Amino acid sequence: MTSRRGFLQTLSAPLVTMPLLSRAGWATPTEGPVLRVALLGLGSYANRVAEAMKGSSRARVTGLVSGTPQKLKDWSARFQVPEKNCYSYEQYDAIRDNPDIDAVYIITPNALHLPHALRVARAGKHVICEKPMALNAKEGRMMVEACEKAGVKLLVGYRMHFEAKTLEIIRMRKAGDFGKVLYFNGLSGFRIGNPSQWRLNRELAGGGSMMDIGIYSVNGARYMVGEDPVWVTAQETKTDPVKFKEGVDETITFQFGFPSGASASCLSTYSLNNLDRFFLDGTNGFAELQPSTGYGPIMGRTHKGPLEFTHITHQTVQMDEMAAILLDGKTPVVPVDGREGLKDLVIIDAIYKAARTGRRVEIAYD
Amino acid sequence: MTSRRGFLQTLSAPLVTMPLLSRAGWATPTEGPVLRVALLGLGSYANRVAEAMKGSSRARVTGLVSGTPQKLKDWSARFQVPEKNCYSYEQYDAIRDNPDIDAVYIITPNALHLPHALRVARAGKHVICEKPMALNAKEGRMMVEACEKAGVKLLVGYRMHFEAKTLEIIRMRKAGDFGKVLYFNGLSGFRIGNPSQWRLNRELAGGGSMMDIGIYSVNGARYMVGEDPVWVTAQETKTDPVKFKEGVDETITFQFGFPSGASASCLSTYSLNNLDRFFLDGTNGFAELQPSTGYGPIMGRTHKGPLEFTHITHQTVQMDEMAAILLDGKTPVVPVDGREGLKDLVIIDAIYKAARTGRRVEIAYD
Repeated sequence: MTSRRGFLQTLSAPLVTMPLLSRAGWATPTEGPVLRVALLGLGSYANRVAEAMKGSSRARVTGLVSGTPQKLKDWSARFQVPEKNCYSYEQYDAIRDNPDIDAVYIITPNALHLPHALRVARAGKHVICEKPMALNAKEGRMMVEACEKAGVKLLVGYRMHFEAKTLEIIRMRKAGDFGKVLYFNGLSGFRIGNPSQWRLNRELAGGGSMMDIGIYSVNGARYMVGEDPVWVTAQETKTDPVKFKEGVDETITFQFGFPSGASASCLSTYSLNNLDRFFLDGTNGFAELQPSTGYGPIMGRTHKGPLEFTHITHQTVQMDEMAAILLDGKTPVVPVDGREGLKDLVIIDAIYKAARTGRRVEIAYD
Repeated sequence: MTSRRGFLQTLSAPLVTMPLLSRAGWATPTEGPVLRVALLGLGSYANRVAEAMKGSSRARVTGLVSGTPQKLKDWSARFQVPEKNCYSYEQYDAIRDNPDIDAVYIITPNALHLPHALRVARAGKHVICEKPMALNAKEGRMMVEACEKAGVKLLVGYRMHFEAKTLEIIRMRKAGDFGKVLYFNGLSGFRIGNPSQWRLNRELAGGGSMMDIGIYSVNGARYMVGEDPVWVTAQETKTDPVKFKEGVDETITFQFGFPSGASASCLSTYSLNNLDRFFLDGTNGFAELQPSTGYGPIMGRTHKGPLEFTHITHQTVQMDEMAAILLDGKTPVVPVDGREGLKDLVIIDAIYKAARTGRRVEIAYD
């Protein structure tokens, strides 16, 4: 590892040596070895990640995996990735022998996360996987176990876990600024377009809005309240059964109970525009984020006033931080590993069960 | 009735003859006979109503009912109510023979609404009752039937049903400005003080936060969405079982399903400060009110911009409108009669049942 790091340092862009204090006073490591990342699945989100990584000082795109030769050619030129680091899906197990790649970032439809993660782990590379990590908790456990067995790390693409205003609220909550936290309200939704996209295909998406946008409220409830829910109730409504077929949820309202007695009410929908609001309330104060998870600047305030931190592209910060986690052993404020991703899946399984049965579902994480 | 009206007109304050267009373009009747109201239960809310009625052109305090002789004396002086129109609880059935009183406004603890309403109806006077109208649907039905049998009207103290920004949103919704309405979010709460007050006594209040502040979200869901819910789910959490005893709910989250497929998520709590927000979302736009039901100015906006209407003390408008309903036969935009109040109680009964059983409860209004 030492020699690889040494090599990486010679590759790295001119270092910004001043910690970025605009990141909630929680300095992002900008010095250190560079994480060399292969992107697997070159869709629009991978493009966003690749563009954002141009601003990362500690992470760089050094490999590409795609089923489309023309894409590999175009991206190779755009991101200066040597042809030898470009793979088709058939070939990419050979990544095992490629010393230019430390980690593979899986950005495919949800149903493909598990098979790709298993292959990446077998190839001895760290896995970074978009969320939801898999289709359900059973798959998630397989991923966690496979990565542990292979001795590679598994991280989930939680960009909000590194966002400055979000982290400031978490800091305030831990400092007791809100008093006893009693309530979280999360609204996550957008109006989905093209009905033929994979997100509306149950086989590929594993569900509907909950597997795509609702998961933000699941995550938000957990990191804003600072606890994991012990029960869930949920209600599904569907106004367009043509667009949203059996097993593809259009709208789900769901509620959590936490060990402290706090509760949460959340909305996940594919039928309403730009719903993106988190609200945390405690006996001594509140916090509000709106937008709370969008790609652009997060806006927030608490009972003490507006949250003022400079916006940095979320994926830029995420990849710098993931470099520090994977290469320096840094511990993030909110976990972003596979066991964290697995908790989401346990909770989402319970939400679907609660919606289906109309019953409150107790959540067991083991 | 004609001679009574004629008499009242001579009593009335100088008339404001210009309709108040600050009331959402929905002109409040400021000309016409004056409704003569006896206030029953002289607590702090009755004081607020009496002060507000000083600004009403069509309603006036002409009677008082209280168990405290000193209060009757003080209020009689403050509001120029002749001593002959002041009653104790033992004496007030004699109000039947008092031509100065058209209606009795019941502002007592919830458990006393039913017995007083029955006595007022028997005395042949119109009943105005604070909300919740009674402890449960069974009591509510008794009130509705008793008033119908006695030939008097029964109105519920819904001040928001006459509020300008609220009515503007309802107008916009009816005009289709929000497209298909799909979601309502209502947050209603405050941190309750003195633990010995009647609101925390199950016998007097009939419950806890739901019977006091949560009902605003129940109402809001109905008038914002414009439908009555057909099912409800609910979850209760309690963090302070000393302050909030058995049968007194501290915090309840509840959800509604509407015939159109729209859903609602609401919060009722006695443990969080100043929660007062309504949010309505549709396929073409949204509406937000915050504060949405407080006594002061309501603040609101929609996708078209801020709602700009002059604040008028809610109870002032309410009493002018109730005069028009009772004396002119005016039909309000949103019903405020006993059958409307009964629907609240049917829904609240269902919320409590859903919270108790953990099951979704279908709502039948008959």
